[in-house]
Amino acid sequence: MDNTRRTFLRDAALISSTLATGRLWAQDTESDFTRIAAEETFTIPEVLEALSELVARDPDRVPPHATILEPEMSSALVDLGAGRISSMDEARIDKQILGIWSPGVQVFGSSQGTELAQLANDRLAEAIRQHPDRFAGLATIAPQDPDSAVQEMERAVVDLGLNGVLINSHTNNEFLDQRQYWAILEAAEALETPIYLHPRIPPAQMYGALTDYTLYSALWGFGIEASTHAVRLLMSGVFDEFPRLKIILGHMGEGIPFWLSRLDVISSSRPGMPTTARRPSEYFIENFAIVTSAMFWDPVLTFCHSVLGPEKIMFGIDYPFAPSTVATRWMDAAPLSQADKRMIYQENAERIFSL
Amino acid sequence: MDNTRRTFLRDAALISSTLATGRLWAQDTESDFTRIAAEETFTIPEVLEALSELVARDPDRVPPHATILEPEMSSALVDLGAGRISSMDEARIDKQILGIWSPGVQVFGSSQGTELAQLANDRLAEAIRQHPDRFAGLATIAPQDPDSAVQEMERAVVDLGLNGVLINSHTNNEFLDQRQYWAILEAAEALETPIYLHPRIPPAQMYGALTDYTLYSALWGFGIEASTHAVRLLMSGVFDEFPRLKIILGHMGEGIPFWLSRLDVISSSRPGMPTTARRPSEYFIENFAIVTSAMFWDPVLTFCHSVLGPEKIMFGIDYPFAPSTVATRWMDAAPLSQADKRMIYQENAERIFSL
Repeated sequence: MDNTRRTFLRDAALISSTLATGRLWAQDTESDFTRIAAEETFTIPEVLEALSELVARDPDRVPPHATILEPEMSSALVDLGAGRISSMDEARIDKQILGIWSPGVQVFGSSQGTELAQLANDRLAEAIRQHPDRFAGLATIAPQDPDSAVQEMERAVVDLGLNGVLINSHTNNEFLDQRQYWAILEAAEALETPIYLHPRIPPAQMYGALTDYTLYSALWGFGIEASTHAVRLLMSGVFDEFPRLKIILGHMGEGIPFWLSRLDVISSSRPGMPTTARRPSEYFIENFAIVTSAMFWDPVLTFCHSVLGPEKIMFGIDYPFAPSTVATRWMDAAPLSQADKRMIYQENAERIFSL
Repeated sequence: MDNTRRTFLRDAALISSTLATGRLWAQDTESDFTRIAAEETFTIPEVLEALSELVARDPDRVPPHATILEPEMSSALVDLGAGRISSMDEARIDKQILGIWSPGVQVFGSSQGTELAQLANDRLAEAIRQHPDRFAGLATIAPQDPDSAVQEMERAVVDLGLNGVLINSHTNNEFLDQRQYWAILEAAEALETPIYLHPRIPPAQMYGALTDYTLYSALWGFGIEASTHAVRLLMSGVFDEFPRLKIILGHMGEGIPFWLSRLDVISSSRPGMPTTARRPSEYFIENFAIVTSAMFWDPVLTFCHSVLGPEKIMFGIDYPFAPSTVATRWMDAAPLSQADKRMIYQENAERIFSL
C-alpha cells in the first residue's frame, strides 16, 4: 500500500475518531479572511410539530425515519441564538448561512406549506436582525404551490432581506425542471437569487432500490437523488431559458463533477439525446457552485478545484449533522493557497449570496 | 476563466470533435508495454434475436430502447474476428477482454438464459482459441437461476479457460447482495474469478425518475444504477463473508471513488447504519478494481489514481460504444509515469484476470 492510500485511510480514520471523540482541535492559524459556512441547518418548532403530525397521520407520505431526530439534534436545529453562536465560536465560524432542515415544508399541503414557509422566513429574518454579523439565511418556500412560492420568495428576498432560497430537492416526487415549476426558476433568476438544491430522501420512483442498509439516507440516497435532480436541470434546457439562474449543490457537487466528461460525451454522441444550446459541463461551470458540506476530504477538494476552479467552491459544514471543528480544521490545513481559501471561505459566498 | 478550466473545456471539445470526425490520431509512442482493453463488448446473434423476440412479446420486461442498435453497432458487436481485430490494430490495442453486451442474458427465463449463456461462452472461447494473442474473455451467466449460473461459471472458467465473469448489474430488479445470489459470490471467490459488474438500464425501482431526457441510459442511469449496486455490496457484509471476492467497476468506478469519505463517515457516525467489519473505503480499496472505460479525462484519472493507487486501475474502452483511438491516444499521453501506465495498460489486467 503506497503513501497516498495510507494517507487516505489515515485521514478517514482521523475523521471517524474525531467524530467519535471530539478530541482534535484546529491549530491556531492567522487568517485574513472571514469564515462563512454556507450549508448550515435550522428549523422551527412549528415545522417539527407539523412533520410529527404528518408522519402519525400519513406515514407513507414522509418515511418516519426522515423525522427521527436525536433530541440534541432537535435542540441544535431550533437554536437560532446563543447555543448556535457558541458552537460557531468554538469552531471559529464567523457566519452561518442558514437553510431549513430537509424536507422543509415540501411534504405538507399547499396552504399549510405556504404558511409554515412564511413563519420560517419571519423567524429566520428576526434571528438575522438580532445577529447580523453571525447569520445570513436562505428562504423557505413551498414549491407545491408555485405561485405562492414565487410570492414568498419575493417577500423573503426583497422585504426580509434573505440571501437566496433553499429547496429540499423533489416536491411530491416532482423535479424543478418540470414546467409547473418554471415560474420559480424564472423568479429566482429575476431576483438574482441563487437556489440551494439540498438533498432529501429520494422520491418514490427511486426509493424502492434504497430501502436496505438505510441507503435512502445521507449514506447514499441523498447524493444520487440530488445529483439526478441536477442532471435533469442540465439536460432540460432550463439554463437556455434562464441563463442567469444559479444553482448551488452541497456535498462537493453531489458527484456531478466526477461525471462531467461522460455527460458531455454521451449527450453529444448518442442518437436521441436531448438538445441544449451548450454542453452539460458548460452549464455546470457557468450556472452552478458547490459547497464542501460534510465532504472534508482533500482528494475530492483538489479534484473539484481542478475542474471548476476556486471561485465555484464555497465552504460549508452541514451543521449540526457534521462536526464544525473538524471542518474548519480541515479547510484551514487544505492544500490550497491563502487566496483560494479566502475565496472558498469568504469571497465566493459574499458574491453568490450578495452578503 | 483560469487555465485549468480552459484545459477542461478544450479537452471536452476535443473529445466531442474527435467523436464527430475521427480526425485525431494517437501520436507515435515507443512503449514497453502491451495495451490491454478490459471492457470490450460483444454479443452473439442468438442473443440479439432472443432480445428482439422478448421486446416484441413483453416490452415491459425490456424497455425497447435497450435493444435498439444502429446496424453498424450490431455488426461490430457480433464480430469476433477480422473486423474487430482491424479496429484494434488501428487503435494499437494488443488485447481485448470481451464481455457480453448489456443486459446479457439476464432478462430471459431461467432455462433460456442458461442455454444462451452456454452458447455465448462456447462462442467466446472459440474466438479466443482462434486469436489467443488478441482476445481474452469474461463468462456470461444467468443469475436468475443461481445454481445453473454457478455451474456455468465453473465450466466457463475451468473448462473453457475464461478469465472472469461479467454480470450486467441487476437481474429482474434484484441485486447480488441479496441472499439468493450469494452462491454466485461464493463460487467466484472459490474460483478466484473476478466479477465485472457492468451497468444496465436501472431497475423498476429507480426507473421512474429516469424516463425523461433518456436519463435511464449511459448518460446518467447506468452510473447511478451500477454505483448503487456496488454500495449495496459494500454495506451488506458480503466482503466479510467472502473476503477474497473481487469486483470490477467500469467508468472509473461509477462515481464511488468520489463518495468514499462520505460513505465512511456516515456509516460510522449515524445511528441505525449497517454494521460491517471494515469501512466501505477499505473494502473498496481491497476488493474492487476500476476500469477507464468511456471516461478518457485526466482530472478523474488523476483523482482515482490519488485515492486508489495505480494498481487498482485498468485501461478499458467500451468498444464499440466509445472510440478506441481516442482512448489509446488519451492514455498514451496521460500525466502518469511509464511504470504506472504499464500497470494500467497491462500488468493489472494480467494479474486480476490471470491472463
